Amino acid sequence: MENDAVQQLLDIEEIKKLKARYFRYLDTKNWDLWTEIFTEDLQFVFAEQNLVFDRDQLKTEVTPEGQVHDGRDQFISWVKMITKGVTTVHRGYMPEITITGSATATGIWAMTDYLQWPGDGPPIGFRGYGHYNEHYVRTTTGWRIKRSVLSRIRIDPLEGGLPPVYEETTKAS
Amino acid sequence: MENDAVQQLLDIEEIKKLKARYFRYLDTKNWDLWTEIFTEDLQFVFAEQNLVFDRDQLKTEVTPEGQVHDGRDQFISWVKMITKGVTTVHRGYMPEITITGSATATGIWAMTDYLQWPGDGPPIGFRGYGHYNEHYVRTTTGWRIKRSVLSRIRIDPLEGGLPPVYEETTKAS
Amino acid sequence: MENDAVQQLLDIEEIKKLKARYFRYLDTKNWDLWTEIFTEDLQFVFAEQNLVFDRDQLKTEVTPEGQVHDGRDQFISWVKMITKGVTTVHRGYMPEITITGSATATGIWAMTDYLQWPGDGPPIGFRGYGHYNEHYVRTTTGWRIKRSVLSRIRIDPLEGGLPPVYEETTKAS
Repeated sequence: MENDAVQQLLDIEEIKKLKARYFRYLDTKNWDLWTEIFTEDLQFVFAEQNLVFDRDQLKTEVTPEGQVHDGRDQFISWVKMITKGVTTVHRGYMPEITITGSATATGIWAMTDYLQWPGDGPPIGFRGYGHYNEHYVRTTTGWRIKRSVLSRIRIDPLEGGLPPVYEETTKAS
Repeated sequence: MENDAVQQLLDIEEIKKLKARYFRYLDTKNWDLWTEIFTEDLQFVFAEQNLVFDRDQLKTEVTPEGQVHDGRDQFISWVKMITKGVTTVHRGYMPEITITGSATATGIWAMTDYLQWPGDGPPIGFRGYGHYNEHYVRTTTGWRIKRSVLSRIRIDPLEGGLPPVYEETTKAS
Repeated sequence: MENDAVQQLLDIEEIKKLKARYFRYLDTKNWDLWTEIFTEDLQFVFAEQNLVFDRDQLKTEVTPEGQVHDGRDQFISWVKMITKGVTTVHRGYMPEITITGSATATGIWAMTDYLQWPGDGPPIGFRGYGHYNEHYVRTTTGWRIKRSVLSRIRIDPLEGGLPPVYEETTKAS
């Protein structure tokens, strides 16, 4: 029992550090290391805004309006494309990590992001506020993100508005 | 000794998750679950700005100028009233949790909040920056917040200023 | 082994609380307590922007363009001088603490700061975004920061621009 508790605490700390590297590699555009964060079969979902969270997870399942990325390689290619030349700042807050089995865990994180596209006019981009709802698995090389659902409380466009590519991409999916 | 250390680490993690749910239920307006965060005899204090913190706690005790809410039900009713239709984003940072007994603990958190009231003109609301100073107790259903004192470093009104209800309420108390 | 794991978890939590006090004493200008955060031989480096982080640390070492402060007393005197009358808000996020020996540890933190200088015109100051890369040592009075390197992702001047003293100081060093 005691050993189990210590192992759970170690796992929780490892998962917090995994998410820290997720943000840090993303914002420093270290894409090679970023691949180590996810399982190959990653599913990443940009959910509709205003999903309601229950005690431990999303109450409402993702609807067709959400944007779904299947597979780590597809997701990373898309993020690289959409953040090319963009200064990004992502932050996580207030983790709620739950170890659900010997090699599985869930997590909820509050988040903010702040993205600005290059250009000379009024700044184009947004500040966003929301939550991640995630599933983790322990692999032979450590914990990895297997599924991540990002739900928004609000998005504030910068003075110059949202970037066209962002609006098109999110609408197209 | 070893067991005590593990128990303390488990309790610290539980209290961090308690505060995470405090923020998450508040910002998703999940009031039913929000009641589970507090003891029935909760005291919540909006302290004067610029209280000085000592090593572990507020150096200056709350003065009559602070706004005091006694009782969980009164506090939740007031928060529901004041945030009706308001988009709220609350974030906590940098917890300093101290287990002070078998069923008691204290905590300090840095915080920011960002509230915008509905309307068509320039946005009304504020961004705030401060610290919580809290007391927790372990109950038969887990840790709960028993006392919370919120002290501000600064409040920046949005372009349209502070909402009238906010100014009146804080002055009236 | 079990004991080692528990000790590491306790140390990680202590270092997180150390950094929390670093921010809290700084933003409440509690300089007497702030001295307890650092070793006497502290080195604090404001690195060039856009340093690339590798898996665990800065890939690029600090160049002569960085601003280096040697010694705790010199550093604190400089911070007191530059923040006189300034409202400061510093926040840390997403710690990656690694215990590297019985009395040594490293840490990476995401950070934001928000500083506004006093004055009547448009607000002068900035909002900054970056990462700390730190070395800690355990002393007879607890963990302390021995070296801290602050690297920026971006700095947004406030409406009234950056303060002259800030620009001169950073250029002069």
